[in-house]
Amino acid sequence: MRQVEPIQRMTEELAKLPGIGRKSAQRLAYHLAAIPLEDVQALAQALAQGRADIKLCLQCGNYTAEELCSVCADPKRRQDVLCVVRDPRDVAAMERMHDYQGLYHVLHGILSPMDGIGPGDIRIKELMERLENGGVQEIILATNPDIEGEATASYIARLVKPLGVKVTRIAHGVPVGSDLEYTDEVTLAKAMEGRREL
Amino acid sequence: MRQVEPIQRMTEELAKLPGIGRKSAQRLAYHLAAIPLEDVQALAQALAQGRADIKLCLQCGNYTAEELCSVCADPKRRQDVLCVVRDPRDVAAMERMHDYQGLYHVLHGILSPMDGIGPGDIRIKELMERLENGGVQEIILATNPDIEGEATASYIARLVKPLGVKVTRIAHGVPVGSDLEYTDEVTLAKAMEGRREL
Repeated sequence: MRQVEPIQRMTEELAKLPGIGRKSAQRLAYHLAAIPLEDVQALAQALAQGRADIKLCLQCGNYTAEELCSVCADPKRRQDVLCVVRDPRDVAAMERMHDYQGLYHVLHGILSPMDGIGPGDIRIKELMERLENGGVQEIILATNPDIEGEATASYIARLVKPLGVKVTRIAHGVPVGSDLEYTDEVTLAKAMEGRREL
Repeated sequence: MRQVEPIQRMTEELAKLPGIGRKSAQRLAYHLAAIPLEDVQALAQALAQGRADIKLCLQCGNYTAEELCSVCADPKRRQDVLCVVRDPRDVAAMERMHDYQGLYHVLHGILSPMDGIGPGDIRIKELMERLENGGVQEIILATNPDIEGEATASYIARLVKPLGVKVTRIAHGVPVGSDLEYTDEVTLAKAMEGRREL
């Protein structure tokens, strides 16, 4: 017996999601087949309408349902510091810290020659325009501490420095609460390199 | 910063799915926000339309997109043996064995006094009607080998025996405490082969 066609259709679409394999997708499809139609419609509606309602903030590129995201729309945030991140998930991570008071700039990608992603494919031009409009004293490069993240940070630093804007990079080191014994060598080397006098 | 509202809406609906926690749901929501609208619409459409297209087979209660499921509609299947299972997932598991030639009867549940599920809540009446219509020589009780599954099998056996229909139970080749859905084909085949009359 082949799989029932609608179940198969659901399974195939669900299996496209990251972290959901064929077996999990099939389990989800059978679950959806067993719950009321209205509940599945509510899920489908939340996904399709939710996706349609998501816009990019006109200023920073973060996700928003309005013209400006909630950070850019908040008059209490410092307008002179920009934190540059890869994507909106990173904004959410930074905001969970409840500590950063400045604005963001979301690149929506990272330089990756291997994947054919160059400077024109991420929101670097928009960053330069924001900086040229003036008012920004410092940009903090908060891309991931991996090869692409470092390369992207270096690239942006080279572009921005001539504008006289201070460019900083988030510190790399041993994560708080972790164990030195289990920290990888590269991270340890970065932690030693970035040591500060007490 | 509160979460962007459409992302939150997607996260909440996704977190209702079994096996998807709050964190995974949020990760999926951000993934959906980043892919093209048409792809999210295709997913939503597959789920809502797929669920709407699923009907219960008029004869056995298995999932189908037609009047009869592919098993009941297959003239090559033996019409004199019924395999009684809890839900359509179990039919799929049995069919993966490629060995059973009879038909099914899907109960869509299992007797469970603890959860307030009695004989009127599962498709036992429909099973009795099929048997009373004649032509069935044997029913194979293939509910899970757990407390509710055994109790349901005993209950049905008591009801059916007076009709003069042979009642068998799949052998305890299926590991006790496990789930039929996750049983490998060989074990399932052994369990069918070793069935005994009740």
